[in-house]
Amino acid sequence: MSEHMYDVVIIGAGPAGIQAAIHASRRKIRVLLLGRIENSALYNGHIENYAFVPQTTLGADLLKLGLEQAKRFGTEHSSADVLKIAHEEDIFHLELESGKTVSTHSLILCMGVSKQKLNVPGEKDLLGRGVSYCVDCDANFYRGAVVTVTGNRSAAVDGALTLLDYASKVYLVAETLDVSDELLTRLQSSSVERICSSIKQINGDRMVTSLELANGEALDTEGIFIELGSKGAMQLATQIGVLLDLEAKYIAVNQKQETNIPGIYAAGDIVGPPLQMAKAVGEGCVAGMEAATYARKKKKEK
Amino acid sequence: MSEHMYDVVIIGAGPAGIQAAIHASRRKIRVLLLGRIENSALYNGHIENYAFVPQTTLGADLLKLGLEQAKRFGTEHSSADVLKIAHEEDIFHLELESGKTVSTHSLILCMGVSKQKLNVPGEKDLLGRGVSYCVDCDANFYRGAVVTVTGNRSAAVDGALTLLDYASKVYLVAETLDVSDELLTRLQSSSVERICSSIKQINGDRMVTSLELANGEALDTEGIFIELGSKGAMQLATQIGVLLDLEAKYIAVNQKQETNIPGIYAAGDIVGPPLQMAKAVGEGCVAGMEAATYARKKKKEK
Ligand SMILES: Cc1cc2nc3c(=O)[nH]c(=O)nc-3n(C[C@H](O)[C@H](O)[C@H](O)COP(=O)(O)OP(=O)(O)OC[C@H]3O[C@@H](n4cnc5c(N)ncnc54)[C@H](O)[C@@H]3O)c2cc1C
Ligand SMILES: Cc1cc2nc3c(=O)[nH]c(=O)nc-3n(C[C@H](O)[C@H](O)[C@H](O)COP(=O)(O)OP(=O)(O)OC[C@H]3O[C@@H](n4cnc5c(N)ncnc54)[C@H](O)[C@@H]3O)c2cc1C
Repeated sequence: MSEHMYDVVIIGAGPAGIQAAIHASRRKIRVLLLGRIENSALYNGHIENYAFVPQTTLGADLLKLGLEQAKRFGTEHSSADVLKIAHEEDIFHLELESGKTVSTHSLILCMGVSKQKLNVPGEKDLLGRGVSYCVDCDANFYRGAVVTVTGNRSAAVDGALTLLDYASKVYLVAETLDVSDELLTRLQSSSVERICSSIKQINGDRMVTSLELANGEALDTEGIFIELGSKGAMQLATQIGVLLDLEAKYIAVNQKQETNIPGIYAAGDIVGPPLQMAKAVGEGCVAGMEAATYARKKKKEK
Repeated sequence: MSEHMYDVVIIGAGPAGIQAAIHASRRKIRVLLLGRIENSALYNGHIENYAFVPQTTLGADLLKLGLEQAKRFGTEHSSADVLKIAHEEDIFHLELESGKTVSTHSLILCMGVSKQKLNVPGEKDLLGRGVSYCVDCDANFYRGAVVTVTGNRSAAVDGALTLLDYASKVYLVAETLDVSDELLTRLQSSSVERICSSIKQINGDRMVTSLELANGEALDTEGIFIELGSKGAMQLATQIGVLLDLEAKYIAVNQKQETNIPGIYAAGDIVGPPLQMAKAVGEGCVAGMEAATYARKKKKEK
């Protein structure tokens, strides 16, 4: 088995991913957990309603403990975000923010839900008429256009780079950037124009025409992509054909946490409410065990 | 509201029931948790794979902590087992081991799975031909017969008392009994004959004819009811029409933990594998929130 071949890869190091890693690793297979605990929705919470952790505890402290616990069972961890997922027969290949690629027999999606909206004037009215939340879904509509991406994590940076293949000009509006050095280098050596500000308002009548920035400037643009999270559920799901639920908000799973694609499981906030860590942990447990069973079967078949 | 009227009653004080109690109680409604933590499958375990409790911890210690946590959120607790469930319009009435009755708008079944089998010679071969695991299901087949019940918790004692209405003679084989004083008094003042021993073998050719006991005696009997748990899933479910899954092993629920009966939810081992506390907790969280929502709606309708 090559260095970069895993049995189970888990995308997302929140409660769902950590519990999935614990249960998968106990099956004596090779398990990789990807993502930053700092980006978990839990990180800034004060938790008191998770059974058997009776004192009010900082989410950050719980996540650190949980990550160590998973590692003790043998889980490998990298904080890199996943940018792309591809499918080749029954092996999945993941392109990481670091530039590396890892491969796996089975995959668990635990990317949570990130804040999606900017909550600025014009955003709601112009949705679908220049305002988009998904580069991978909508890039094609902006061939030859001037477009802007906003967000400070991997989804925004990767989205901006992707749009270079379609648009005539790409701006990235972000005060700060929290991405890997590799991704930052790729951004800096590209033709994406970075603007260190934030968006106050989206202007347009029938279609988006410009943005008002916090630095007082106006920016002419035909499209504004709001990509506030890490490379998120919707985009990665779209790439590989994982089906969403009827409202197209969450990933659709059955009681075994299976998605429509054999070998791909999902757990936690990404599969819908209640958005609670106890629920995330329960689903992570099931997904971890199911994915491990699937991976062991696939290996035997070879 | 009367003293014995609750919004949500949870049967079973294991991980599923405790997490359900926490999430239901946070909704500012009246919540009662029933059952003994000592009878949880977790009680004698050493737990290391529950995320965010990183040290190996005794199940007993976790359960004590979790019960206190639920009480801090306002959960009331009684260690009494439930013996019967009845339905009157949309109110559920529960008869407790203590003789009391409590009523509730909504109900969560978290009774776990208890060891079902004796594992003695004859048990498997004579299943359905004198060997039964469910008094409430099979009592009617033993009209006028001599029958024996074995088990040391409420299911066995209540089963023996129930059989008095059908059989000509009822024995109860148990070394020790772990039931409420009230139930013990009812047993002692009944015509059930208690034998302080255990069963070594079940004899019979076409049908059960006798039992060999650990004290060396033989006991003539036409039926042997093996009721090792508390009053368990199958019996309580049968009483009130909750449907089981296709293999008739577990309670059937959907992703909201709803059973086929509006207002009745189920979570934890009782709804099937993996039999893990993380899964039990996740389902308990969902069931607690759903049951609370249901109860609040029912109260508003009045
Ligand atoms: C302020 C706050 C307080 C809260 N308080 C409570 C509470 O008291 N009790 C409670 O039960 N719940 C609480 N919650 C909800 C709880 O935090 C979530 O339900 C829980 O964190 C969901 O877990 P998850 O594993 O599904 O997702 P998350 O915890 O959000 O984890 C998602 C993970 O995915 C990673 N990720 C995302 N995209 C990628 C990618 N492309 N590549 C790699 N990794 C990626 C992220 O970095 C992160 O590690 C609170 C939430 C907030 C925001
Ligand atoms: C020895 C052992 C070790 C284990 N180790 C682990 C482990 O390391 N990790 C892990 O995740 N899981 C472990 N498990 C499994 C875990 O204990 C169960 O999955 C978990 O306890 C299920 O929770 P539950 O709430 O569904 O049921 P339980 O914990 O079994 O609780 C059932 C509750 O229902 C009550 N009850 C039953 N009938 C009635 C009635 N008629 N009226 C009132 N109350 C009733 C009982 O008294 C009890 O309080 C272990 C199990 C055993 C036996």
